[in-house]
Amino acid sequence: MTIAIIGGTGPQGRGLALRFARAGVPVALGSRDAARAGDIARDLSDRLPDGSATITGLANDDAVAAADDFVILAVPWSGHNRTLDAIRTGLAGKILVDIVVPLAEGDPKKVDMPPEGSATEAAQELLGPDIPVIGALHNVSAHTLNQLDWDINCDVLVCGDKLDARLKVIELVKTLGVNAYNAGDAQSARCIEAITPILIRLNISKAVPFTHAGIRIWAPEH
Amino acid sequence: MTIAIIGGTGPQGRGLALRFARAGVPVALGSRDAARAGDIARDLSDRLPDGSATITGLANDDAVAAADDFVILAVPWSGHNRTLDAIRTGLAGKILVDIVVPLAEGDPKKVDMPPEGSATEAAQELLGPDIPVIGALHNVSAHTLNQLDWDINCDVLVCGDKLDARLKVIELVKTLGVNAYNAGDAQSARCIEAITPILIRLNISKAVPFTHAGIRIWAPEH
Repeated sequence: MTIAIIGGTGPQGRGLALRFARAGVPVALGSRDAARAGDIARDLSDRLPDGSATITGLANDDAVAAADDFVILAVPWSGHNRTLDAIRTGLAGKILVDIVVPLAEGDPKKVDMPPEGSATEAAQELLGPDIPVIGALHNVSAHTLNQLDWDINCDVLVCGDKLDARLKVIELVKTLGVNAYNAGDAQSARCIEAITPILIRLNISKAVPFTHAGIRIWAPEH
Repeated sequence: MTIAIIGGTGPQGRGLALRFARAGVPVALGSRDAARAGDIARDLSDRLPDGSATITGLANDDAVAAADDFVILAVPWSGHNRTLDAIRTGLAGKILVDIVVPLAEGDPKKVDMPPEGSATEAAQELLGPDIPVIGALHNVSAHTLNQLDWDINCDVLVCGDKLDARLKVIELVKTLGVNAYNAGDAQSARCIEAITPILIRLNISKAVPFTHAGIRIWAPEH
């Protein structure tokens, strides 16, 4: 079951491609520049252990067409709406997984949310009710994703207005070996997307003993 | 150094009073009903181990007056602005620590944020720039706080527009034996307050193996 990663040549897209392919999920890596996507797909494939699924580099449109169920949008916020507009006709019958965080221009320690409230809500409004938009994978550090020998130190909060699509994305995310939780409808993306700049702040700060911070849901010990 | 907890007779206020007093911080527990505050302060004191600081029950105004530096606001969201209005003159020279989450009426799995963006921002606007408002302690489960033999399974994200006040509140929160992190200015409260209903959703859900969930900032293991 092939997934597409649009904007897949960026750091988050590359890291997710590696992780999904290693977990056995074939990846169609999309870029506006198909040749560049092909080059990066080959580089990534060289890093994968034997038995991994394939990573194929394609133009965004072709990557969307190659996806069976899931199209992951991994572009920078500045290209979010434009990219969705360009791929929307190909999304019929598929689920858009929006991982984009509207970081403030010039300050990655803050968000600058769109009028719709969040990137996930903006995508749902732009695509209309027939294409389910699910927010997920916002808080996992790209650096961590790209270190294949590191465990992913981050739980994944999954939100969106269509419950059945949310549950399918939770199952997809779990193939990466992480915990994924149902965090409610699309409005929860206002919170979940905004966790990322708080983590970036902690990473930049000298006050904490780590970089590439993630979040975990934690139960009381007693 | 005495702290005040306004709305201290609710579950979150009682739990924080126990935890701070056990950590050696004297607590002035405020309520609109001074007699009720006195009764609850006595009940809580009976649960404290030897060597704890005192918990004293007072009317809200008197509790604010008894506080040296920190006044914690722990009322339900429905009483947030009204209570601030009632105590505002006593807050001069002190830091207001706002722990209130604007849960949606009838659905604790969602927030219903005020026009200012969050409870913390609403408090800062109501009190004006001379009284620093710091958001903190939103995500710690009241149930966990009240189980003195449980570790607190939750890191604390601290935000507010005045950096020096933020750092002082971080030190105060750390006396409870938890991690507390600088999460940026008051706008971050839109995210931090909204984490609570996501945790409540997970607690209610049968899909996760725990109740009283918290969040932790987590470093990569490698």
